[in-house]
Amino acid sequence: MADLLDAEAFVAVLREEGKKRYHDLHPFHVKMHAGALSRRQIQAWVENRYYYQTRIPLKDATVLSKSEDPAFRRRWIRRIHDHDGTLESEGGLAQWERLAAGVGLDVGRLRSHADVLPAVRFACDAYVTFVRERTLLEAVASSLTEFFSPDIMARRIAAWETHYPWVDGPTLAYFRGRVGRAKVDSEEAIAFVIAHASTRAEQDACVAALIRKTEILWALLDAVEARHPA
Amino acid sequence: MADLLDAEAFVAVLREEGKKRYHDLHPFHVKMHAGALSRRQIQAWVENRYYYQTRIPLKDATVLSKSEDPAFRRRWIRRIHDHDGTLESEGGLAQWERLAAGVGLDVGRLRSHADVLPAVRFACDAYVTFVRERTLLEAVASSLTEFFSPDIMARRIAAWETHYPWVDGPTLAYFRGRVGRAKVDSEEAIAFVIAHASTRAEQDACVAALIRKTEILWALLDAVEARHPA
Repeated sequence: MADLLDAEAFVAVLREEGKKRYHDLHPFHVKMHAGALSRRQIQAWVENRYYYQTRIPLKDATVLSKSEDPAFRRRWIRRIHDHDGTLESEGGLAQWERLAAGVGLDVGRLRSHADVLPAVRFACDAYVTFVRERTLLEAVASSLTEFFSPDIMARRIAAWETHYPWVDGPTLAYFRGRVGRAKVDSEEAIAFVIAHASTRAEQDACVAALIRKTEILWALLDAVEARHPA
Repeated sequence: MADLLDAEAFVAVLREEGKKRYHDLHPFHVKMHAGALSRRQIQAWVENRYYYQTRIPLKDATVLSKSEDPAFRRRWIRRIHDHDGTLESEGGLAQWERLAAGVGLDVGRLRSHADVLPAVRFACDAYVTFVRERTLLEAVASSLTEFFSPDIMARRIAAWETHYPWVDGPTLAYFRGRVGRAKVDSEEAIAFVIAHASTRAEQDACVAALIRKTEILWALLDAVEARHPA
């Protein structure tokens, strides 16, 4: 059995394995930020990614249900509020619905998930299942894609404002909000996995969980691109 | 198949089936409110019931994870805050720990669950498992013991102040807080089951879920009484 990595080496492995598989490298995503997607491709991404967004509070509630520590739960519960809001018009899901309206989608149809591609559904549901079936440590590790999120969000806002001027600026509020939140969330999550992965096998399981999560995000884009090729 | 009950008849069945099995009728509980328990029996109840209390936020997070409706989640999430608090010293679990200290228990040992009786653990864990494995409707219906909670809490405060003057009054804060909260929570839950039990089979499943929950609370007292007889 390999030795336990020190915190710095462990984080370096997580960053390296995550970064090289992060979905900003996916061809469809590269095209999105290069301004090469059609209006319909943007819409398809928004309506399919919305299904992913709706799984997040369910996933986070499942994480909560796995923790015996009230202090952990008090921190993690903020993620559910971030997506659901405290009022109907607030929160990440409501912001995503405004983004959908801003790219010309019907919000009622969006909420019905009628246009979600089967492979997108399978991938997103697999994420919730993973979190339910694995340890709390692996569940938290799977959230570490947020490490890379502030950077991708900042680049996305700039790219969309440049290349897709037909999308109203205010509808990008979701991306703007995620820059700061993803930073806080990922710092909390990395502190947790450093503190709780106490064997090399557990560290390896954390890396595997992060890789699995990148596969889920990648599969989502594969499915959208296959159905809506350039 | 029997006909769907109207809302009034459905609620009447829930109230009747729940009321006659509610744990205020358990011999150990009757003795508690009559002032017939010893200090050690009170302590045993507090330390075992604490295990139940610690399952509640896990159960409620599981309920959250089963709902596709952000509006439902925005309401239900309050239950988790009620138990966990927003600060370490707040919330129902912290209040229960103060109650434990007030009856002479060591809070560190309480938190370790070292003195939780096996049958208490099985019963409380069975509640979390029930909520995880059943439908959202049954999960919500199982919470309807709170129907009967405001009344029992009001009687408990009076009984403890009369019969157990060695327990500091301020340590009864948990019971005081539950009077109002249980009323709000149970009214929301009953509105949900009325709205969502759309067949007689679903109504019957709600009644069965409530009965199962009363069995869990009853089994807890059975176990405490068996280990700490009068």
